[in-house]
Amino acid sequence: MRIVAALGGNALLKRGERPDSDIQEHNVEIAVAALAPLARDHELIITHGNGPQVGVLALESANDPSLSHPYPLDSLGAETQGLIGYWLVQELQNQLPDRLVAAIITQTVVDRDDPAFDHPTKFVGPVYDEAELRAIATQRDWVIAADGDRWRRVVASPEPTRIVESSVIRLLLDANAVVVCAGGGGVPVTESADGCLTGVEAVIDKDLTTALLAEELGADALLVLTDVDAVIRDFGTPQAAPIRSVTTDELRGIRFPAGSMGPKISAVCRFVDRTGGFAAIGSLADAAAILDGSRGTRVNPS
Amino acid sequence: MRIVAALGGNALLKRGERPDSDIQEHNVEIAVAALAPLARDHELIITHGNGPQVGVLALESANDPSLSHPYPLDSLGAETQGLIGYWLVQELQNQLPDRLVAAIITQTVVDRDDPAFDHPTKFVGPVYDEAELRAIATQRDWVIAADGDRWRRVVASPEPTRIVESSVIRLLLDANAVVVCAGGGGVPVTESADGCLTGVEAVIDKDLTTALLAEELGADALLVLTDVDAVIRDFGTPQAAPIRSVTTDELRGIRFPAGSMGPKISAVCRFVDRTGGFAAIGSLADAAAILDGSRGTRVNPS
Repeated sequence: MRIVAALGGNALLKRGERPDSDIQEHNVEIAVAALAPLARDHELIITHGNGPQVGVLALESANDPSLSHPYPLDSLGAETQGLIGYWLVQELQNQLPDRLVAAIITQTVVDRDDPAFDHPTKFVGPVYDEAELRAIATQRDWVIAADGDRWRRVVASPEPTRIVESSVIRLLLDANAVVVCAGGGGVPVTESADGCLTGVEAVIDKDLTTALLAEELGADALLVLTDVDAVIRDFGTPQAAPIRSVTTDELRGIRFPAGSMGPKISAVCRFVDRTGGFAAIGSLADAAAILDGSRGTRVNPS
Repeated sequence: MRIVAALGGNALLKRGERPDSDIQEHNVEIAVAALAPLARDHELIITHGNGPQVGVLALESANDPSLSHPYPLDSLGAETQGLIGYWLVQELQNQLPDRLVAAIITQTVVDRDDPAFDHPTKFVGPVYDEAELRAIATQRDWVIAADGDRWRRVVASPEPTRIVESSVIRLLLDANAVVVCAGGGGVPVTESADGCLTGVEAVIDKDLTTALLAEELGADALLVLTDVDAVIRDFGTPQAAPIRSVTTDELRGIRFPAGSMGPKISAVCRFVDRTGGFAAIGSLADAAAILDGSRGTRVNPS
C-alpha cells in the first residue's frame, strides 16, 4: 500500500512546551517510532505541520535589525521544511537503516484569484498594540485584525491546487524511499499563465495539501494523525462518544467546535470522495492500529 | 556529462548587501541564468554555501527570548538548506520548465575523532565583548576566540567523510532531475558504530563536501564557481596573472593569501587526483565557458 501520513503540529511541539530544538527532536523520535512500523510494510509519505516553527522564525525575522524587512512567509516556510525535514529524515534513517529516506523541499500552487486572498483570516507572527501594528501594516501592506485585546497580522489561507514536486516524490516512492515532503502545507506559490512560479504571502492548510498530495500520488490510504484518539460525536456533552466509522456525508453533517478539526475532516472527505481510498483520523501513537481499523475514526465513501 | 557545480556564498549575497530575502532571490535568478545552459545539455548537481544565511539565523536564534538556548548549528544549517534550496528550485523550474528539479536535505558525516574537534577554528555567530562571551561560553560549553578586538564563538571544521543522501541524489540524477543538495557543506552529523546519526556543532567546508559528493556520484566534472575569473598567480604583485591550466601538484605548490581559496584548491585537487575528472575554478557568470575550457582555471592530473 502507498500511505500518506500527516503529522499534526503537536507531534513536534506539545502545548506549553518551549520551541527548543532538543525538545522537538525528542518528540520527533517518538513520532518516528509510531510511523516506522508502517514504513516496514508499505510505501510511506510523511507530511507535517509547521505552525509553531514558522511562528518562531517569523518573530525572529521581524525583530532582526540586520534586515530591511522581515522574510516573507514563503521563505520562512521553506526554512521550516529544511529544519523539520532534517529532524525527521535523520530519525527515520536511524530507525529504518535499510531504507532510502529523503526530505524534499515542496512548493504548493494556489490560485491567485482564490477568494481567500480578499478575506485573510489566518493569524501569523507576533502580537502588537493596535497603533504600533497599524503603522507597520501601512508600511508593509499587511492586513491586520484583532486577536483578543491585541492585534496581529492576518494572511490568506487559499486552497491548494497542485503540488509542484509530485513527480519527484513519485520517483522516490517507486524506488521504495520513505519521503518527507509538503511540510507546513507546502511553500505557497502562484503560477502565471506561462507556468512561472512566484512565492506568495499565505498559509496553506497542511491537511488539505496532504489530501491533494495523496490524490496526486495515487495513494491507497490517508492517515491524519493528531493528539486525539478519534473524532468525537456530541463533543462536550454527556453523550460524547468516539466515532469509529462514518461516511463522508455523515461526517460533513456533524457540527464540531471551532478549531483545527474542520480542515482534517475536509481533507479526509475530499480524499475518500475523489479516490474511494482508505482514510482515517486518529492519534499518532496509534498509527499502525488506525491502519488495521482497530483505532481512530475510519471515514468511508457515502 | 554529470557535472557538480558549487556556488560560492557571494552568488547569493554580495559583500555589503543586506541579507534581505528579495536581494538574495534576485541574485539566485542571476546564478540560475548562468547555470541553466549546463543543465540543458548535461546532468547537473548544484551545491551552495550558507555562511551569511546561517549567520543571520544564528544571531536571530541567539537573541530569541522564547528559547532556552539557541538552536545548534546542525538545525540552523538545515534551515538554510530549506531556504536556499527553495529559492534555487523555484528559479530552476522557471528557467527549465521541462526538467524535473529537486532540493534534497543533505547530511554529511564527519568523524567524531577528527582532530579539528580539538582545535576549533571557524568563527560562527555574533561578536561579543570578552567578558560577556566568557559567561555565555561557560554556560553553553562553547570554545571562543578573539576576532580582532571582539570575541566570537569558534567551532570545528572537520573533514567530510560520507554524504548520507548520495543514493537518493543518484536516483534523481538517473531520472534526469537537476538536484540541489549539500547546502552549506551538508548538515554535519557523526555516525556511531551501529550507524546511528547525530547532529554535531560544526561547520563543514562546502567545497570539500562538494568534491566528496562529486566523487561519490561518479561525476565527470567539478566546477567551483566564485567571484574571481580564475586562480591568480603572484597575487598582489606586478607579475599577477590568471592561471588558465595547472596540474594538481603545481597548484598545491603555489602560495595564496589566506582566505577562501585554500579549500577550493584542496577540493579540486582531491577530485582530480582521485577520479581523473575535469575540474576548474572560475566565475559563476562564466560557468558554461569554464566547462568548454575558454575561461577559468582548469586543474589537470599531475
